[in-house]
Amino acid sequence: MRILGIDPGSRITGYGVIVKEGNRLVHVDNGAIFTDAAKDFPLRLQRIYRGLSEVIERYRPDVAALENIFFAKNVQSALKLGQARGAAIVAAVNAGLPVHEYSALQVKQAVVGHGKSAKIQVQQMLKVLLNLPEVAQEDASDALAVAVCHAHSFSLNALRRHAG
Amino acid sequence: MRILGIDPGSRITGYGVIVKEGNRLVHVDNGAIFTDAAKDFPLRLQRIYRGLSEVIERYRPDVAALENIFFAKNVQSALKLGQARGAAIVAAVNAGLPVHEYSALQVKQAVVGHGKSAKIQVQQMLKVLLNLPEVAQEDASDALAVAVCHAHSFSLNALRRHAG
Repeated sequence: MRILGIDPGSRITGYGVIVKEGNRLVHVDNGAIFTDAAKDFPLRLQRIYRGLSEVIERYRPDVAALENIFFAKNVQSALKLGQARGAAIVAAVNAGLPVHEYSALQVKQAVVGHGKSAKIQVQQMLKVLLNLPEVAQEDASDALAVAVCHAHSFSLNALRRHAG
Repeated sequence: MRILGIDPGSRITGYGVIVKEGNRLVHVDNGAIFTDAAKDFPLRLQRIYRGLSEVIERYRPDVAALENIFFAKNVQSALKLGQARGAAIVAAVNAGLPVHEYSALQVKQAVVGHGKSAKIQVQQMLKVLLNLPEVAQEDASDALAVAVCHAHSFSLNALRRHAG
């Protein structure tokens, strides 16, 4: 199963692609789409959409995973983040991918084993877990983390199905 | 010039298409895309994207106009609204339309002549202005209003250019 993790943002959108082969997780690619250069907000949204559509075209993932968001600094940043998120999700569903959402707590627990880890711990654990040459860029790292979280939940659900 | 007005929302997205011919405004169509039936939020966003893409395909507008949003009840509704808005804007820019944004004040002033009008006044004025058979559905009406606002701003800008 190929999993695309996405961490949408109005300035930087991270992505990470991993493959789950049995119990092994294999890193395929990770990166960030920078949209700062577009002054016009609608064009930023288009860059997110196009950038992710290209990633999906290139790696043909089976599923997309995002962290769900319930908090933001204020209404202003929630509106901006929401729009970036909308562009990202539409890119995934338009490509036929099911979209799964996980809480920040679920993501941290999946990667580090508990929910109270600092960002740098998550990044370093991902480096080990996915055998990365170096710690991934911050937003790409968040995207990889939610992809790993989906891989784990999928195994758990499969285990539950076998047990049940 | 054909103008598509959009009023995005996570449950209902209104749209309105008008043509500006010289100083005349002609109503082409208006309607609402209901997304409530989709339980899954990503599928709601896809319905917004697809619904608007179909409207654009059918009427081939030259430009899209939306009200800009700076307020929301809370961070939660801002995130939902933002995502709906992101899906709508991406539908417009992916179809090659320039996207213009206007404040609620600008929209009311363009339709009713002042910024303190009630929603029903705006709806009734649109009925007269565009010679509608009946008052449009609420979200479709908001979409028509921002289309009219764009038509007026466009005339003003053209006048200023001639004067300058």
